[in-house]
Amino acid sequence: MSKPKFINRWIPLESKTAEGVAGSLNYRHNGLVIVVAQDVETAEVLMVAFANKDAVVKTLTTGRVHYWSTSRKKLWLKGETSGHFQNLEEIYVDCDADVLLLKVHQVGKACHTGHRTCFYRRIKGEELVETEGS
Amino acid sequence: MSKPKFINRWIPLESKTAEGVAGSLNYRHNGLVIVVAQDVETAEVLMVAFANKDAVVKTLTTGRVHYWSTSRKKLWLKGETSGHFQNLEEIYVDCDADVLLLKVHQVGKACHTGHRTCFYRRIKGEELVETEGS
Repeated sequence: MSKPKFINRWIPLESKTAEGVAGSLNYRHNGLVIVVAQDVETAEVLMVAFANKDAVVKTLTTGRVHYWSTSRKKLWLKGETSGHFQNLEEIYVDCDADVLLLKVHQVGKACHTGHRTCFYRRIKGEELVETEGS
Repeated sequence: MSKPKFINRWIPLESKTAEGVAGSLNYRHNGLVIVVAQDVETAEVLMVAFANKDAVVKTLTTGRVHYWSTSRKKLWLKGETSGHFQNLEEIYVDCDADVLLLKVHQVGKACHTGHRTCFYRRIKGEELVETEGS
């Protein structure tokens, strides 16, 4: 069998360790932290969403990125329906500990619109122009 | 005279055009959009903050990044006290129009702690390790 193209270099944390790390963050955005997902290979910013403590713990213990869906008000494993998982490589914490930067291997496409990144539109003069094919 | 090292490639918009563009965004995070600043040269994510419509208009019309300071509750020209301006190159809008990705030329350091990026700490096991010098 051939090796998988993307390997997940995050070493999953034990629950207790993950609880400690997640508990040290500052959930000051309506009880959530902001999460930026960046492609570890291309450095492309893929999406921005939120996580509650449970989502952070799940991400740390599984190596697959979990968010808190503010529309559905529930824990959300990215890719759970689409198969477009985000496999974690590294996590960075900002100076205020209220934003996480996740470096990920994106399986398929990050955006529900079918684009690789959610940031597929650029402001050009008074227009929004698409910068990337689907 | 030598040319400046960084040039600002954003062509400032006229006020009316900027108002139209800024007005098309979705200020759904307590009346604000989330803003991610990314270094246009290194692709490093520098910081995440918020902007109201006024801040977006100022950014579009001046080519210098403005935020809304949620702690001071006022418009904030990044670099106004430190001189560490963010000169705009490109702006991207996400699929929900509630997050902006700004590609910038960062003068000096983005973080008030004296680090180049606010994301200078990485989660490693149960520890936060600094990944970058000041």
